[in-house]
Amino acid sequence: MAFIVDLRSDTVTKPTKSMMHAMVNSALGDDVFGEDPTVNALESKVATLLGKQAALFVPSGTMANLIAIMVHCNKRGSEAIVGNLSHIFKYEQGGAAHVAGVLLSTIQNKPDGTFDLQELESKIRGSDIHEAITSLIAIENTHNVCGGKVLPIQWIDDLAELCKKHNILLHMDGARLLNASTYLEVPAERIVRGCDSVSLCFSKGLSAPAGSALVGSYHFIKQARRARKMLGGGMRQAGVLAAPCAVALDDAALALDHRRARVLADVIHGLFLKTFSVDVEGQRTNIVLVRISENSPLNADQVLQRLAQICLAETQGSCKTTNDEGVIVKAICFNEKTLRFTLHREIQDEELWLAIMKITYVFKELDAAHPVKS
Amino acid sequence: MAFIVDLRSDTVTKPTKSMMHAMVNSALGDDVFGEDPTVNALESKVATLLGKQAALFVPSGTMANLIAIMVHCNKRGSEAIVGNLSHIFKYEQGGAAHVAGVLLSTIQNKPDGTFDLQELESKIRGSDIHEAITSLIAIENTHNVCGGKVLPIQWIDDLAELCKKHNILLHMDGARLLNASTYLEVPAERIVRGCDSVSLCFSKGLSAPAGSALVGSYHFIKQARRARKMLGGGMRQAGVLAAPCAVALDDAALALDHRRARVLADVIHGLFLKTFSVDVEGQRTNIVLVRISENSPLNADQVLQRLAQICLAETQGSCKTTNDEGVIVKAICFNEKTLRFTLHREIQDEELWLAIMKITYVFKELDAAHPVKS
Amino acid sequence: MAFIVDLRSDTVTKPTKSMMHAMVNSALGDDVFGEDPTVNALESKVATLLGKQAALFVPSGTMANLIAIMVHCNKRGSEAIVGNLSHIFKYEQGGAAHVAGVLLSTIQNKPDGTFDLQELESKIRGSDIHEAITSLIAIENTHNVCGGKVLPIQWIDDLAELCKKHNILLHMDGARLLNASTYLEVPAERIVRGCDSVSLCFSKGLSAPAGSALVGSYHFIKQARRARKMLGGGMRQAGVLAAPCAVALDDAALALDHRRARVLADVIHGLFLKTFSVDVEGQRTNIVLVRISENSPLNADQVLQRLAQICLAETQGSCKTTNDEGVIVKAICFNEKTLRFTLHREIQDEELWLAIMKITYVFKELDAAHPVKS
Amino acid sequence: MAFIVDLRSDTVTKPTKSMMHAMVNSALGDDVFGEDPTVNALESKVATLLGKQAALFVPSGTMANLIAIMVHCNKRGSEAIVGNLSHIFKYEQGGAAHVAGVLLSTIQNKPDGTFDLQELESKIRGSDIHEAITSLIAIENTHNVCGGKVLPIQWIDDLAELCKKHNILLHMDGARLLNASTYLEVPAERIVRGCDSVSLCFSKGLSAPAGSALVGSYHFIKQARRARKMLGGGMRQAGVLAAPCAVALDDAALALDHRRARVLADVIHGLFLKTFSVDVEGQRTNIVLVRISENSPLNADQVLQRLAQICLAETQGSCKTTNDEGVIVKAICFNEKTLRFTLHREIQDEELWLAIMKITYVFKELDAAHPVKS
Repeated sequence: MAFIVDLRSDTVTKPTKSMMHAMVNSALGDDVFGEDPTVNALESKVATLLGKQAALFVPSGTMANLIAIMVHCNKRGSEAIVGNLSHIFKYEQGGAAHVAGVLLSTIQNKPDGTFDLQELESKIRGSDIHEAITSLIAIENTHNVCGGKVLPIQWIDDLAELCKKHNILLHMDGARLLNASTYLEVPAERIVRGCDSVSLCFSKGLSAPAGSALVGSYHFIKQARRARKMLGGGMRQAGVLAAPCAVALDDAALALDHRRARVLADVIHGLFLKTFSVDVEGQRTNIVLVRISENSPLNADQVLQRLAQICLAETQGSCKTTNDEGVIVKAICFNEKTLRFTLHREIQDEELWLAIMKITYVFKELDAAHPVKS
Repeated sequence: MAFIVDLRSDTVTKPTKSMMHAMVNSALGDDVFGEDPTVNALESKVATLLGKQAALFVPSGTMANLIAIMVHCNKRGSEAIVGNLSHIFKYEQGGAAHVAGVLLSTIQNKPDGTFDLQELESKIRGSDIHEAITSLIAIENTHNVCGGKVLPIQWIDDLAELCKKHNILLHMDGARLLNASTYLEVPAERIVRGCDSVSLCFSKGLSAPAGSALVGSYHFIKQARRARKMLGGGMRQAGVLAAPCAVALDDAALALDHRRARVLADVIHGLFLKTFSVDVEGQRTNIVLVRISENSPLNADQVLQRLAQICLAETQGSCKTTNDEGVIVKAICFNEKTLRFTLHREIQDEELWLAIMKITYVFKELDAAHPVKS
Repeated sequence: MAFIVDLRSDTVTKPTKSMMHAMVNSALGDDVFGEDPTVNALESKVATLLGKQAALFVPSGTMANLIAIMVHCNKRGSEAIVGNLSHIFKYEQGGAAHVAGVLLSTIQNKPDGTFDLQELESKIRGSDIHEAITSLIAIENTHNVCGGKVLPIQWIDDLAELCKKHNILLHMDGARLLNASTYLEVPAERIVRGCDSVSLCFSKGLSAPAGSALVGSYHFIKQARRARKMLGGGMRQAGVLAAPCAVALDDAALALDHRRARVLADVIHGLFLKTFSVDVEGQRTNIVLVRISENSPLNADQVLQRLAQICLAETQGSCKTTNDEGVIVKAICFNEKTLRFTLHREIQDEELWLAIMKITYVFKELDAAHPVKS
Repeated sequence: MAFIVDLRSDTVTKPTKSMMHAMVNSALGDDVFGEDPTVNALESKVATLLGKQAALFVPSGTMANLIAIMVHCNKRGSEAIVGNLSHIFKYEQGGAAHVAGVLLSTIQNKPDGTFDLQELESKIRGSDIHEAITSLIAIENTHNVCGGKVLPIQWIDDLAELCKKHNILLHMDGARLLNASTYLEVPAERIVRGCDSVSLCFSKGLSAPAGSALVGSYHFIKQARRARKMLGGGMRQAGVLAAPCAVALDDAALALDHRRARVLADVIHGLFLKTFSVDVEGQRTNIVLVRISENSPLNADQVLQRLAQICLAETQGSCKTTNDEGVIVKAICFNEKTLRFTLHREIQDEELWLAIMKITYVFKELDAAHPVKS
């Protein structure tokens, strides 16, 4: 038997007991008629949390972002500028183009998840009939592919000002916004002050089973509600999903995830291996990116496979649970040379230490067996 | 205080205790990784029930139909032919055109929810470069706007044959398919035998909180899964929604709804009022349509408003609960001269009789006060 | 050798000598820079003719209609209501749905090309979140499939008022608007007074080689120019096409086409055949529809094929040219039981009489050989 | 009076006398019925020229590229990868996204118009459900924004092989393909050998008034014809446009444009000014890019304005025509620091020398008046 530590994503968390309790003890109604009190309460709660007028509960973060694009980009030939490493560009299947008919134009993300504002300004266009009309900028906070980076508030504020100057709207994909708020120790509403809309995901670090919120002005949310209906995101007694989301907001314990992520990063860094490195300076929230040296013969998939195996030596040594089970660590591969480990509510100290034991064992083994060419 | 009998829709039902139990006691996982055992089990169960290879759990019936259109209509310039009274045409905001880029062409629904197959055949087109390419026919069973009518199996079979002949696909919006199956006392899989895909809704008469299934071949469902992702319909621990849906299938008691709907229809018919009529011959499932005479000065909104009020005389008479509460009946208006009453799990005998009392009282009162011009 | 009289369409006309002259003697420039004086002059001329602020020259009527839909229907989930026999619905490949993302909703055309305004009003929708938003009504004048029918001005005015009342825009597919103007002996600008936009085709009865104009307000045309660019309808020295169009407007001789169409209709009617009938009462402009009796074993394709053949008897008799050539008449088939003959500039009296001779010969022959079942 | 030398674009050329002659002396027909012999002949001619099975005549290069994307990207959620400086991305208004529903993903163009093939390979995706499906790569030859650069044949061949390996289609925006062929002294068909489709523009250096061809396999062109109809690009007696295009192919004299462009580039380079520079090494075809030093206070708009003015000193000196007219040079501004001068058929030696005189005068004047900060 093996003990599995699943660090693939903070989406794998299962609902907590209090969430389960809320799920079966909340008042329900038909949300398509606007009568689900639990959904309505959650929408109010999130709008207040983010300092905006209104909110809409939707099945997923992908839908939240898609709706934001549909509503904001309301001219034919609109363009939205997004980071080249953004979730919207990389992992939402091009829905902005296919469903919303919007050109996605990319700007290069810096390692910290931001991009250059001067470069951005040079990309704004639409006065000429040959060009798409830049209507929206979307940013991501924390930034997933950049390793859970937190966007500096000053940068967001500067960007918001630039957007206002050019009459362009600003959307934040805040799937992990509360991780940013926790890291900065600044209320979420302050972070998103300059944004016209924000999406927030309940099923990542917050560990609710499903659902996201889209937040903005009354007028925006009214149109978003129509767009949600068109996409088929309207649900009936949606309160059964909204109830655990409300609990998730109250019970969030993201600082613990961040602390544990830092421990993991520090440990890996402390191994001083040529094959594997971690940017401990850049470590911010619950995501730890491990880079494999360009000169290593190894690629990320091979490392993942090894982490998913248990060899005899491991269990004969100390790399095992108190029940003598071998340990498997799951992670995901961002690209050929990058592994992502994500901390979340179900990784308590015990799971963390088992993961560290296993990762240490495997990394050392691989580093020795497949030396980096110099 | 008033006692409310809500006959607006079978979507207003709240989850039962066994559904709640299932919700908190089912194994969960991340369905985006395909690891939610409860979702997987539900998908298998529905596929088996409908005799198809595979199924996909989606947030709503609207999304199920939209995805079917996206997958089946895979040529640019495709056309789907649907009934002019179909849910897809009337109540899904034109998503087929806007999201899927598909021309919806309508054919006139007969009162029984079918349409003329010869007329259909004459509408099939696409050989000429000027024309859209007819790629899909969609039918609805039971047919909501036609009053819960059940499509004759022979008609579906004939239509399916015609579709095959012309190499056109056939989708059934089976939001209330199990009502049809119950009425006909024929397994659902027999009914949909000729269909390439079927959507089935869990949150109508089945009374689960939310969710629909889309069913078809392996190949179809594989593409549908992609389309769901694009629309943002993928959810994480979706098992919390799928669990009550599975219970809903097991605990379905639709025959009772049908019986009660018939009682309501018979009673209204038996009033022999000039203002209000019911097609008792055509009464099939859980929907009762009441037509207001064209020559009556009343319209449906006025009747709904009266049903939502309680006058002194009512409570002084017998139109009240055993606790002396007045009764309010909610329904919806299909058009200026048509009211829809829908029976569902939460309308047990007691609620039914209270509704009948109230409806009888109000209909008689209105018929007397606003005589039909002859 | 055969002499061909081509009555398939008024689009088959070749440019006249004056058109050719204009083509090579007009000032040209780069219209993408707005510098083609001939295009600019044509646009002014057409705008003035139709009493609107501005016009845009586009390659085809299909593009003119598509652009009108793109510009007018600027909300997601928009719907345009069109006649079920309209060119937009039947012959433009569903571009409104596919390119513009607009739901086309059809209303039944009456035989005179109009539709019922009360029925129309009942179809207007969009207040409910489930529904598409009715944003545009499009009418066709003259109405092709209805046989070149001219819409009554009063009806258009009433419709325009109804549109204003509901804040809906009105577009006229005026591909053959000048035929209507000629028939009514009323300036085109009066006819389109209540319309927000009009398309006008130069390559039908006007007999220019190619091109249409889209006409409306400054604001509308500014957006239309952007839409034309997106579709790829912007051309460089477009003056070579615009020049003959301007001549076409000056040299229009549509009354002659109408007179000849009436002669053809009268002659066919005067044959008093059971197989073939013409609605001489309804004959208006340059299109003659011949209906084949429902009880005839013949279909339109068979008749077309016979018209395209020459038998010995014909040329031995009088059905031939003065050069003893047999005559072939080309027409098109609208449906299984309807043939369309279209008069145009290249059908002068001689061609007309040859056509009449041939049609008379063939119709009598077929009527005798394939008697109508009674 | 001023003499204007228009170097804004090779699109400003007016048709030659032989083109005019062809325009009025070619056989015409209704191309929507496929009966315009001049169009048919042109399509055959271009297909042969490019060594492909078939061709389609369309109103513009923008439409040609849009249709290629529509036909090749026939899966929902498709992605086309294009250079970040490509015409398709920069100057076609995002039609690929809006009309075709295709995600445009950009790869950085190198100064020579190519991009890195390894980088390209790393961008190919679609196996994961989160990702768009890479279906098409589009390249541009010659590359406009890169200054008329000619893509190396070997690079195209390597790219084509890579595309085949990944089952991705390859489109060439060959608006100025014949400039590349002329420069390389290699037949166009050899250049495009590995491409699945090619667009070719007749109204740029070839100087026909309007029109482009889209070229590919029979099957591709059949679908393209449908797409053209949907966009409204089908025209009737399109032969009046096709005739000058055929002449344009026969009479092409692009080598002269290239030679004159080189002269202009060499002259500007030979001024050895700090403000203005030309990449004479990179000079290839008919486009000359002049860069303004980053350290100069001048921007491109200011230079354009000065080139469009005539000061007294100029005409008192030698910067004038033999008729004592001052000279105006028109060019366009690519960005704040880049001017584009384009040579074309209407710039014969005389116009070239007038332009050189003026440009030399103005550049020297500006360089002296606004010294570059060092």
